[in-house]
Amino acid sequence: MKVTLNGRSRLCRTVSFDADRNAVLLIEQRLLPHQFKIIPTRDFRQTALAISNMIVRGAGAIGATAAYGLAQGARAFRGTNPAQFACHLDEVYRTLTNARPTAVDPVNAMNQVRARMQTAETVREQQDLALAAAESFAREDIAHCEAIGRHGARLIRNGMRILTHCNAGWLAFVDVGSATAPLYAAQAQGKSFHVFCDETRPRSQGATLTAWELAQQGISHQIIADNAAGHLMQRGEIDLVIVGSDRVLGRTGEVANKIGTYTKAVLAHRHKIPFYVAIPLSTIDWKLKSGRAIPIEEREAGEVLGAWGVIRRPGMEGADGVSSRSRRVFVQVANSTSGARNPGFDVTSADLITGIITPAGIFKPKELWTNRKILAGAP
Amino acid sequence: MKVTLNGRSRLCRTVSFDADRNAVLLIEQRLLPHQFKIIPTRDFRQTALAISNMIVRGAGAIGATAAYGLAQGARAFRGTNPAQFACHLDEVYRTLTNARPTAVDPVNAMNQVRARMQTAETVREQQDLALAAAESFAREDIAHCEAIGRHGARLIRNGMRILTHCNAGWLAFVDVGSATAPLYAAQAQGKSFHVFCDETRPRSQGATLTAWELAQQGISHQIIADNAAGHLMQRGEIDLVIVGSDRVLGRTGEVANKIGTYTKAVLAHRHKIPFYVAIPLSTIDWKLKSGRAIPIEEREAGEVLGAWGVIRRPGMEGADGVSSRSRRVFVQVANSTSGARNPGFDVTSADLITGIITPAGIFKPKELWTNRKILAGAP
Repeated sequence: MKVTLNGRSRLCRTVSFDADRNAVLLIEQRLLPHQFKIIPTRDFRQTALAISNMIVRGAGAIGATAAYGLAQGARAFRGTNPAQFACHLDEVYRTLTNARPTAVDPVNAMNQVRARMQTAETVREQQDLALAAAESFAREDIAHCEAIGRHGARLIRNGMRILTHCNAGWLAFVDVGSATAPLYAAQAQGKSFHVFCDETRPRSQGATLTAWELAQQGISHQIIADNAAGHLMQRGEIDLVIVGSDRVLGRTGEVANKIGTYTKAVLAHRHKIPFYVAIPLSTIDWKLKSGRAIPIEEREAGEVLGAWGVIRRPGMEGADGVSSRSRRVFVQVANSTSGARNPGFDVTSADLITGIITPAGIFKPKELWTNRKILAGAP
Repeated sequence: MKVTLNGRSRLCRTVSFDADRNAVLLIEQRLLPHQFKIIPTRDFRQTALAISNMIVRGAGAIGATAAYGLAQGARAFRGTNPAQFACHLDEVYRTLTNARPTAVDPVNAMNQVRARMQTAETVREQQDLALAAAESFAREDIAHCEAIGRHGARLIRNGMRILTHCNAGWLAFVDVGSATAPLYAAQAQGKSFHVFCDETRPRSQGATLTAWELAQQGISHQIIADNAAGHLMQRGEIDLVIVGSDRVLGRTGEVANKIGTYTKAVLAHRHKIPFYVAIPLSTIDWKLKSGRAIPIEEREAGEVLGAWGVIRRPGMEGADGVSSRSRRVFVQVANSTSGARNPGFDVTSADLITGIITPAGIFKPKELWTNRKILAGAP
């Protein structure tokens, strides 16, 4: 997507590869929205570290990072002995897998690259195929998001006011994003609309990442406190809700997503506002039989008790109003002798969801299962 | 209520009066929860400043502050000429009224004091009556809150998990509070329960003031992000909701309160969890005919775009874990090129409210109007 720095615009992907330097190029997401920086990782160990350190996050983005990391590791091998190469590749694979052990996307992505490599014999051929396979994984991720955008954009009419929660944007994928894809597609079609970004406490991904994305693309938007959406819906100021998801149950249509999603779905339902969930097909879990079985991660209390931000220093501001030397600091907001509960995710039942926007089209949540042959194989 | 500092407990009111020094004593609420300090105002001008500077806030608390401020101004008069005294008193009244021109409580409170003063003739007698009247205004505020507590405590059973939003606590009144009154009364009755405090973004009064209050009283509690209540209700972890209100419409039973209250009421309704609103009778507006007519203040965007807190400095911590020298700072959390919408309040319809807890008993919201003779005169 487009990024504008010091008045100059350029196109940029969340994850890409520099073949000459054999480096994975990543947007350093921990600095956003206060600073924009692309960092190259010099070897597969650094790439693994970038995943574990959260320099890169989001299912699609860490999948592509691992795929590129595997190619990077493969290409760094000096020699022609296939057995030694296979042994080296195992180590690369293990290192990248262990960078985020609970995530399924890096493993799926690397398996796809490895399968393609097996069609070659020499080390050199395998090295070339590794990069080609990683590139096509990344291109596919983009193509899936673009397909989500094409289907989702049909829901957006001129003048609409659209609510989104958390960040399911291009920063979470190689490009384009899932919940944001319909917005970018509708913008490209010349439609005008306004987006409300839920702040998304406690980690504020809506106020930081989604708001930054929309500002870069020049999409009209405002941040709201998570408390405000109900009031805006009541006053008729929200026409459509689009969110992403961490896991959609293919059997029940239930949707696990960032904490607060369920609340917005209940409010939308009361006000008869369409509520859509945009996902790539890899997000569908065909096995689990009930949303109650989805483990809800209880995150650390500290996130709720304070906030990360920058202290503006007058006289040191750049074009974006924040000094590049502004230090990101954590402030304790809450009473220091109080604790917190911090569930990271919630589960929304199918009856509250109007439709699931996928690269293969829009489905009612209860229709995923009847269409499982198309969806499990698609797009 | 009880305040514990450096391991020593004492009883304390939000607003009180030191007759020897002719000073109003106020908890400096802008420093909470990071620092506890009671400041004396030396004259009525300082008292007015404390109201306008938000050192003291909350309907009951600023009412009592103005009542004491009027007495303070009256007592500072040197002389015996009743005409000169009346002229001086007018100036005191005007100054205190102008400290928060939109608030109705300071005016009501001062009118009560003035009416009582008119029963005396000499300046000296009027001065004495002014203080007596201010004292009885403050005592009445406490008595009303205690009555709310008695009625509300009947709703609380052992083991309950109770949600509250924002701060309708003793810091907003002379003592005891409205939404917190049933909690303190139930605690005094030996009941055990747990409170979830909504953080209440953007100003975080739940995480700062309510959490501080409950910690001081030793009531089991945790802060949650505003996004988390829906999930906790869905999992059966909330049994009761009690909130305060800025205005309850006597004709319709609609409730205006801090932004986010409506959302919690919708969630509670879906999960069949009782939702109560605790108020003194002065909060009931008998005139307005529709909640749509309540003006919703749009507050400044900056509140949504960042957060106020303290930076913990290792090695400088006191018993409460935060250095008294920690500076309260504002951090910019959100993308700096994005704006925000910031409605300060919302309106909850009567069908979502189980009952209104008043000093005169608990009423269904639609029953306020039929009981208006009791309620407008009571308690």
